[in-house]
Amino acid sequence: MTPDFDLKQYLEDRRLMVEEALEVALPQQDGPETRVVEAMRYSLFAGGKRLRPILCLAASEAVGGDLKAAMPAGCALEMIHTYSLIHDDLPAMDDDDLRRGKPTNHKVFGEAIAILAGDGLLTEAFVLLSDYNSLLPERAVQVIGVIAEAASYRGMVGGQVVDILSQNKRAELETVQQMHSRKTAALIAAATESGALSGKGSEAQVAALGRYGRAIGLAFQIADDILDIEGDTELLGKTTGADEARGKVTYPAAVGLERSRQAANEMVNDALAALEGFDDRANPLRSLANYIITRKK
Amino acid sequence: MTPDFDLKQYLEDRRLMVEEALEVALPQQDGPETRVVEAMRYSLFAGGKRLRPILCLAASEAVGGDLKAAMPAGCALEMIHTYSLIHDDLPAMDDDDLRRGKPTNHKVFGEAIAILAGDGLLTEAFVLLSDYNSLLPERAVQVIGVIAEAASYRGMVGGQVVDILSQNKRAELETVQQMHSRKTAALIAAATESGALSGKGSEAQVAALGRYGRAIGLAFQIADDILDIEGDTELLGKTTGADEARGKVTYPAAVGLERSRQAANEMVNDALAALEGFDDRANPLRSLANYIITRKK
Repeated sequence: MTPDFDLKQYLEDRRLMVEEALEVALPQQDGPETRVVEAMRYSLFAGGKRLRPILCLAASEAVGGDLKAAMPAGCALEMIHTYSLIHDDLPAMDDDDLRRGKPTNHKVFGEAIAILAGDGLLTEAFVLLSDYNSLLPERAVQVIGVIAEAASYRGMVGGQVVDILSQNKRAELETVQQMHSRKTAALIAAATESGALSGKGSEAQVAALGRYGRAIGLAFQIADDILDIEGDTELLGKTTGADEARGKVTYPAAVGLERSRQAANEMVNDALAALEGFDDRANPLRSLANYIITRKK
Repeated sequence: MTPDFDLKQYLEDRRLMVEEALEVALPQQDGPETRVVEAMRYSLFAGGKRLRPILCLAASEAVGGDLKAAMPAGCALEMIHTYSLIHDDLPAMDDDDLRRGKPTNHKVFGEAIAILAGDGLLTEAFVLLSDYNSLLPERAVQVIGVIAEAASYRGMVGGQVVDILSQNKRAELETVQQMHSRKTAALIAAATESGALSGKGSEAQVAALGRYGRAIGLAFQIADDILDIEGDTELLGKTTGADEARGKVTYPAAVGLERSRQAANEMVNDALAALEGFDDRANPLRSLANYIITRKK
């Protein structure tokens, strides 16, 4: 790592780049779809960190690929992440009123439009990926496969099922790991894999960056569980202690805070180990791995 | 048309072929996803006519393509159709208790799992399409684009928005056309277009079969509106008069039964005209166009 690498500035620059691309990918519409696109945009532009697109772009660069080539995958990942938040917040699911300090989608647009906004974002991700002109069709199909698989019932949808069905039960480590692995790590691994594919990485590079993604995805979710206990409500934009109040199974509930911190650290080390064969172009990924567990929001 | 073409037998043969392919595409699972896959399968195997897959396969054959080559697209279309039914039936949307004579998904599995089952089916369609080994990647990407576009906020999601926002309002012809075009015709057109693409049809053939699909899609939906007024409750597996009771805008409500029948007939003629350049291999499509407006369920 170059000691003068400014991760904060890097994240801010990349975030702005992603905002711009998302604005082009989903502009406001006139006509019968006005309302649903408004709802889709409300959540898509609600101030997310854009972590998945940023990881996707960084993975493309780590294999010597073009930054721009990975942008459609980055935007698709953010749309899928956003759809999952909208549906997770619904009254039938977590029944959340606030997300990032703002009223949740169904609170503003009503349940019907919120469900459709989620459906629309999930679908739009694949519209975007099918128009992947900067990639050879073989690569585009691979990217679509990696991202769809991560979003599927074997990935995110399955993770949300575990989340719902395990509420108010005793937190077993295996259940928590199942949930984190599917609900969070699957899409983060898809971000780095699809970035590596977009950047024309070799099979070995794609696999290594997938391992990196899965490891930081798990670390990220454990850190999230810890922040929910120890974090600052104002910085987070959500009430701390919400997981416990809601009977969610979390990593700290299963093994305690100390072992949770340890597990997150180990996973960050695993992630760094997966980058061993990469040169300096993977430095942003190295820096991001450490940021994941030291962030305050 | 050969006078001895037995459409009823044809539809039954094809339906069984599609059932088998769907069974392979979505087998029951063990593990944390058991419950959601059960819910996905409950609606996917609820006795649908499999019209979209059958049209997709027939379009592939009409351009001289392989039947099997179009099956992944056919299965994906049926998954997307089924997801849309599950979400449309939700309490926040149409609040339906029965679908094809059976309790709706959320009545059996609860709202949370029903939402996730819909999300899972929509996603699984793209998993299936990304694994389209029988097609060249260029064609596979085109198929994904055509199907995703039809499901998007410019298509089905937008149609459902029009449906919801127009309830209990005066039925304007333009609104009804907007709704039918997006909610029903878009995916049926995608069925014949993706079939033609899978069968390696020329650009002109793909366009002609898209026109055919849009026309019969509109005719199909008008016929549905008419059946809701004149149909047999037992044959349909749903209560007739439901549209009116619910304040839905329909074609007959906008222009009356007689003009609705006329419009459906005109669209079938449009559909047949689109097939003019095709040989006998398009005969099943010709026969299907007439069936659309004479069916009793």
